[in-house]
Amino acid sequence: MQKKIRLGIIGGGGESLIGVLHRVASFINDNYEIVGAVFNPDHQRSLAFAREIDIPTNRIYKDFDTLIEEEMKLLPSERIEVCSVLTPNFLHFSMAKKLLDNGFHVICEKPMTTTLGEARILQQAHQKSGSVFALTHTYTGYPMVRQMREMIKSGELGKIHKVDAQYYQGWINSVIHDPLERSKVWRLDPKKAGISSCMGDIGVHAFNMVEYTTGLQVKSVLCDFNYLYDDNQMDVDGTVLIRLGEYVKGVIRSSQVATGEENGLTINIYGEKAALRWEQERPNFLYKITDTGPVQIYKPGHAYNSELSLDGTKLPPGHPEGIFDAMANIYLGAARAIRGEEYNDGEFPTMLDGVRGMSFIEATVASHKGGNIWVELD
Amino acid sequence: MQKKIRLGIIGGGGESLIGVLHRVASFINDNYEIVGAVFNPDHQRSLAFAREIDIPTNRIYKDFDTLIEEEMKLLPSERIEVCSVLTPNFLHFSMAKKLLDNGFHVICEKPMTTTLGEARILQQAHQKSGSVFALTHTYTGYPMVRQMREMIKSGELGKIHKVDAQYYQGWINSVIHDPLERSKVWRLDPKKAGISSCMGDIGVHAFNMVEYTTGLQVKSVLCDFNYLYDDNQMDVDGTVLIRLGEYVKGVIRSSQVATGEENGLTINIYGEKAALRWEQERPNFLYKITDTGPVQIYKPGHAYNSELSLDGTKLPPGHPEGIFDAMANIYLGAARAIRGEEYNDGEFPTMLDGVRGMSFIEATVASHKGGNIWVELD
Amino acid sequence: MQKKIRLGIIGGGGESLIGVLHRVASFINDNYEIVGAVFNPDHQRSLAFAREIDIPTNRIYKDFDTLIEEEMKLLPSERIEVCSVLTPNFLHFSMAKKLLDNGFHVICEKPMTTTLGEARILQQAHQKSGSVFALTHTYTGYPMVRQMREMIKSGELGKIHKVDAQYYQGWINSVIHDPLERSKVWRLDPKKAGISSCMGDIGVHAFNMVEYTTGLQVKSVLCDFNYLYDDNQMDVDGTVLIRLGEYVKGVIRSSQVATGEENGLTINIYGEKAALRWEQERPNFLYKITDTGPVQIYKPGHAYNSELSLDGTKLPPGHPEGIFDAMANIYLGAARAIRGEEYNDGEFPTMLDGVRGMSFIEATVASHKGGNIWVELD
Amino acid sequence: MQKKIRLGIIGGGGESLIGVLHRVASFINDNYEIVGAVFNPDHQRSLAFAREIDIPTNRIYKDFDTLIEEEMKLLPSERIEVCSVLTPNFLHFSMAKKLLDNGFHVICEKPMTTTLGEARILQQAHQKSGSVFALTHTYTGYPMVRQMREMIKSGELGKIHKVDAQYYQGWINSVIHDPLERSKVWRLDPKKAGISSCMGDIGVHAFNMVEYTTGLQVKSVLCDFNYLYDDNQMDVDGTVLIRLGEYVKGVIRSSQVATGEENGLTINIYGEKAALRWEQERPNFLYKITDTGPVQIYKPGHAYNSELSLDGTKLPPGHPEGIFDAMANIYLGAARAIRGEEYNDGEFPTMLDGVRGMSFIEATVASHKGGNIWVELD
Repeated sequence: MQKKIRLGIIGGGGESLIGVLHRVASFINDNYEIVGAVFNPDHQRSLAFAREIDIPTNRIYKDFDTLIEEEMKLLPSERIEVCSVLTPNFLHFSMAKKLLDNGFHVICEKPMTTTLGEARILQQAHQKSGSVFALTHTYTGYPMVRQMREMIKSGELGKIHKVDAQYYQGWINSVIHDPLERSKVWRLDPKKAGISSCMGDIGVHAFNMVEYTTGLQVKSVLCDFNYLYDDNQMDVDGTVLIRLGEYVKGVIRSSQVATGEENGLTINIYGEKAALRWEQERPNFLYKITDTGPVQIYKPGHAYNSELSLDGTKLPPGHPEGIFDAMANIYLGAARAIRGEEYNDGEFPTMLDGVRGMSFIEATVASHKGGNIWVELD
Repeated sequence: MQKKIRLGIIGGGGESLIGVLHRVASFINDNYEIVGAVFNPDHQRSLAFAREIDIPTNRIYKDFDTLIEEEMKLLPSERIEVCSVLTPNFLHFSMAKKLLDNGFHVICEKPMTTTLGEARILQQAHQKSGSVFALTHTYTGYPMVRQMREMIKSGELGKIHKVDAQYYQGWINSVIHDPLERSKVWRLDPKKAGISSCMGDIGVHAFNMVEYTTGLQVKSVLCDFNYLYDDNQMDVDGTVLIRLGEYVKGVIRSSQVATGEENGLTINIYGEKAALRWEQERPNFLYKITDTGPVQIYKPGHAYNSELSLDGTKLPPGHPEGIFDAMANIYLGAARAIRGEEYNDGEFPTMLDGVRGMSFIEATVASHKGGNIWVELD
Repeated sequence: MQKKIRLGIIGGGGESLIGVLHRVASFINDNYEIVGAVFNPDHQRSLAFAREIDIPTNRIYKDFDTLIEEEMKLLPSERIEVCSVLTPNFLHFSMAKKLLDNGFHVICEKPMTTTLGEARILQQAHQKSGSVFALTHTYTGYPMVRQMREMIKSGELGKIHKVDAQYYQGWINSVIHDPLERSKVWRLDPKKAGISSCMGDIGVHAFNMVEYTTGLQVKSVLCDFNYLYDDNQMDVDGTVLIRLGEYVKGVIRSSQVATGEENGLTINIYGEKAALRWEQERPNFLYKITDTGPVQIYKPGHAYNSELSLDGTKLPPGHPEGIFDAMANIYLGAARAIRGEEYNDGEFPTMLDGVRGMSFIEATVASHKGGNIWVELD
Repeated sequence: MQKKIRLGIIGGGGESLIGVLHRVASFINDNYEIVGAVFNPDHQRSLAFAREIDIPTNRIYKDFDTLIEEEMKLLPSERIEVCSVLTPNFLHFSMAKKLLDNGFHVICEKPMTTTLGEARILQQAHQKSGSVFALTHTYTGYPMVRQMREMIKSGELGKIHKVDAQYYQGWINSVIHDPLERSKVWRLDPKKAGISSCMGDIGVHAFNMVEYTTGLQVKSVLCDFNYLYDDNQMDVDGTVLIRLGEYVKGVIRSSQVATGEENGLTINIYGEKAALRWEQERPNFLYKITDTGPVQIYKPGHAYNSELSLDGTKLPPGHPEGIFDAMANIYLGAARAIRGEEYNDGEFPTMLDGVRGMSFIEATVASHKGGNIWVELD
């Protein structure tokens, strides 16, 4: 018999898309129960949302600090065990840190922090805490992404020598060409969005996928951003040459002005023996190609898949699962970790992924601003 | 403020795939709370499963009749409002009827009954009851299937003159060629599976999709089954010529021995002005083709979609939702109906779909056994 | 050293699409030289076309009979060796017969004749003649169609139990809904188009593909046509249940009112061990699916393909070849046969395919007119 | 009345793949007749090949210089009008130059020369000559590539701000990992292959496609090559950051070690209003995507296509044409130019494309060797 894990939610109220994604993901495997929340900085709205989704309102707190304070007064057996941090980016660091410092487990939206410095501090706080920290790079929860990782780990591709990852969206195209419009987008305001728009928001996902699937680390980057207009200070497009070894090279391509693209995250890994291709918009198809045989399409749920992949599939082959299911897989892995059960490496992204991601973002900015020079990741 | 709907579950415990599908679907839009259940005919197992998923065990009943009896003793404000019937097919009728007769709403797995006669009786019980009855033809919950329906309804295709629907699976292929193996498959045992295997299990979904998307009714069928072996009495493959009007014709193709096929439900509708194509395994792509223009691919979440379609999409374009989300949409529509809120025709399949389905299945069997003759649907 | 084969062309002048297809196909493998022709019933146009494509005009004859007469006066070493018959359908029989009777080889467009009776007579003429007779069911010339045939022949699919072939076009949709328009289409005029429009023009290709790829023969058919309007006497759509053995069944679906479809010939063959899928509009991809392994995509030019398939590919993998190349492969096989060289079964469709095709067309018409009854093929 | 153009072939004998491609392309539109050749440096082989394909041997010359010398003795009305230069790369320059200097038209395989210096000299020779010079960047002959060009030219995409082109092959992967094997590949020998393997052989095609489709010029490049091994001196993989304007940026990705890739040339062009995507291995599908509407798939032969595109399609929609047809379109454009007929810009690549290509190749090498710095194209 296992009790549901007591989950707190910070942010994600109302029409929040990230809110519904996390809430549903927490339900899917019957592991979590939402027992407390600050859905919104406006307490009345927070309460209203709790009522709307029929959650008891007695632990809907007026703000984050109150949540911590009040929950700490409760018995450990009643207290929130883990908090999902879904607030605006600039708040992730301070909230996650305070949660860890007070012994809570944390499920944190990306970007983990706004600077690499913060990430390092959070990393130390995490090491001290002994808590579970899961970073929701959602795409690693797809069964076929997990299958990529396991196939590469088992040597099916041989030595990797080339990677090519892309994350193309088009949504900023619809606002950037008008000076007034573009001045109103918070993502293009350095004060609100941090040092990077395109790399910070989506390029870092592609970076994470490269490291997640290959098990390799990006050593250095050379980056060229495109701002499109003189008065725009934020990258809306960027191409990053990457090196993962002396002769292991690749490219990460990221754009928010790739007109018409929706959520075009793709990854291609080339090794001596074979290559793998995956696209986020058709997540249930993984292509293995070789120099000599037929192309092979792997699909979820088949016995030929790895344990890590099969663990992330609930229904038999041919029943498409999607991004809610991918996020649910990350919540499932975190649940096992929180309960102290066994789990496999790769079930959820960790603090290390968060530190690596911030290191990548800062390196790309440094490279571009330095005149497209090579910059090493810490 | 709205309270969650009190949901009871009959069947679907343990490793049941249909169980997880319904349970997750009920959670997704924050509308239902499971308050009672008979997960398994074995009460201990039922209790164990309730504990496993951390549901209070006080309303886990020893059997279906006890559930009804005990729940009827509760105040209406505490009583289960709606039951999901996920038991073996032959039990659907009697359970659904008793639920309706006692004033419960019902969400019922398909096939609704095992005979058309039962379906007619259930239809009467439903009419008397005033309850909501939702039949889970899951595929109608996909946003792009709903979009098909609305595009056709709005006249974008003009008059329909041809339909072609397919539901191909291959799983029986793996067992049917060995006499011993095939004797052990319950789907091939007329005592357990009813009058039809292939049409009853999957062909009826294709039939439902034809009627759901076109708004037309199949008038008559001519069917040819394949049993593959002399000692097999159940259809494992069948092709059905259909007529929806004097010059409105089509075909429904269904198979469980389409080797290698997973869940190959596809539908093509041809009208004077345009045609639409959809495939269940790539559910987020709807193709509109015309004689003169470029092919158009509709995707979920875009403003160009109909209200009914958009209602079934939770995230922006490019974030794939899948079959759990489709089922959740049906639960969402049922929730609105149960709460007496407004909802649109097409948000969930109804009693009428169940009656039509049974009529179709019986007609195909009569056609085949009559020597591939035309048989009219009631 | 080999001389080019002396080729005569009957029909196919001016803007004729079939003309350019055959002419190019004859050139592609350096095997044929056009030395004589009746491109057009109007001799001046015939001459003009010869000049336009810069072919010597001295053997551009005023009509077919003159061509025969004059060519027979020439020395065998100068005489046309083979004639391509590209005239309107109703002329194929008499021309092909006269050519065979005079000792010419024949490359004949389909349909071979307008009735099965004629086909039988032509078959006898062919047997007497000792000439080569190639029927241009072009699609059998695609490398991946040939690969299907060889994989099935070698037993990779095991025993076949189901076939599903489709040939959907939409072009008649654009004219049939207006009474005046439809009265002007020659394909809808029984006097000009023969007994069948849809089956005769395209359904027969799907039929041929079934027999070509599986090596099986269709034993009987049950067919339902759609005429769409009372005053239309020709089938523009039809679905055919087929039997290739007691428990080997399938369906051929054919339409000229499948709105928006261009040239949608597809074929699916299901056997005990595996299945194969191919689509004419993506001819360089052949899908092999099994119950347990990844989907496999075969592509032309790889060493894993059969000899028959590789013989039909001129460039390495990744260089798309198309329908001109498919037709060229048929011309290549015919060239080998004409020269008395060795060639493989399957390099070009034969007289037998023509007879089978006419048998199929007549059986479908008999089935429909008989009230959708089973009709055996001769 | 028009006579066929008298074509000479230099190289391309025996099993040469480029030979069959050009020969067939010259036949396809009935415009050319091969009247002379040096198929092979070995005269006996040259003669044997002429006999094999049944071409008169009297103008099969022992070498290139003899061809020029002897042909110049013929009357202009009999003399070869145009020569196709299909010899090893290092011979292109000298042969093309001598042909131009002697008044012949030239159809030249790429790379046009081995250095930019040679390209400049050839450009001058061409300007002096008044001859037609066509460079066979074959892919520009595909109807949907032409359609891209015309759609962009007509403003359908608005201002272009991003381009992403890829040319991935895998064939060198199969030989490069063994020191002995890689020492034997001529493409990896700087003496034979020139300054670049990957960029020179295939990257330049992707570059050409960018300039061909957009009408823009690449101003500067920053390139990173991968050699894979210390003892390999030739690029087998490279990523090139490109700038086509201050805020018009992009990337060209090219590889010969992209394991399993066959001929993966793809191009994506993003403009303010829309984007276009095309892939060489599925050449008959062109995707137009926008921020707000359904994806549109353009296919060849439809009336909605531009004149330039339709000119390159011989059959109606749904009949796949391939790479032989694409090359034939280039030959067709060259034929019109040679005959002094009107033709459209874009019907065949020109001397300018050749000069631009060499400029690109040299700039990428300079960029990489200079330490991944920006290098301007001349």
